[in-house]
Amino acid sequence: MRTFWARAISSSETEDEKALASPFLKFLTRLIRIEDINRSWEGKSDAEVLAHFILSKKQRSAISIIGSPDPFVLWRLEVFYAAVGLMIEERSGLTTSPMMKISHEGSGRVLLTAGRLVLLSKILCEVHRFGYETLTQLAEAGTKLVDEAMAAIEAYPDAARA
Amino acid sequence: MRTFWARAISSSETEDEKALASPFLKFLTRLIRIEDINRSWEGKSDAEVLAHFILSKKQRSAISIIGSPDPFVLWRLEVFYAAVGLMIEERSGLTTSPMMKISHEGSGRVLLTAGRLVLLSKILCEVHRFGYETLTQLAEAGTKLVDEAMAAIEAYPDAARA
Repeated sequence: MRTFWARAISSSETEDEKALASPFLKFLTRLIRIEDINRSWEGKSDAEVLAHFILSKKQRSAISIIGSPDPFVLWRLEVFYAAVGLMIEERSGLTTSPMMKISHEGSGRVLLTAGRLVLLSKILCEVHRFGYETLTQLAEAGTKLVDEAMAAIEAYPDAARA
Repeated sequence: MRTFWARAISSSETEDEKALASPFLKFLTRLIRIEDINRSWEGKSDAEVLAHFILSKKQRSAISIIGSPDPFVLWRLEVFYAAVGLMIEERSGLTTSPMMKISHEGSGRVLLTAGRLVLLSKILCEVHRFGYETLTQLAEAGTKLVDEAMAAIEAYPDAARA
């Protein structure tokens, strides 16, 4: 008979597997592996590649928001939104264009456009702590942005193709 | 009888006066005066306030594009696009939102949006040398951006109001 913990672990493993199989995390992992010129991710699993995107509440609050955000967290933000853009491109056939501006204090804005259409516009705060509690949350966050952008393209097809 | 030069000067004076009376230069001057917390522009004419936006070809090419652009030129760029945004707001009744990102090498991009509509998207290069040869050219450059944005709002009114 499996214990409670064995079942809990196995259920979160299944959740992780489901998340890793989601189109968004596939795009994100693919992008990270493409940029891997030092081959530091070679031989590592997708879960390992995405491990830096996962932060528990405790880990998040332990990160200081004083001073400039770590360049590696800025890179994670960029690759996250690049994956959102890439997935929109594959689904819509449109070319997307990202623009991100983060201050030295770790707040800023990200815009993603296609033609004359704003696909996504988000104010970012405390980017030092960018991360999600689980792979499922990471997958859901990216998928939600893609879905919202796809809905905007459907609502304003001419502006998106302008 | 007026000499050739007297006529040439007087004609360019009239041109300057016409340019200074244009709505765009009125917005630009107003914005600069609003930001004038040190009162350094007090008692100066509009032409004097805008003098830093005017560069001859010779002056432009004398500015080095090696290294970071002068912060004052970045401020001029920002106030120029802010005036474009402000004039669009007054004409359309919409709220505009600017986003500018300039690298340390002096190239970058400026985006101006209203709702879900991209009003203006421009790649900027060699911003170290930002300037126009005459007040007329400055007025025309700003007016052209405003007119293009207004045409986009007319073409995609729903996206602009989204």
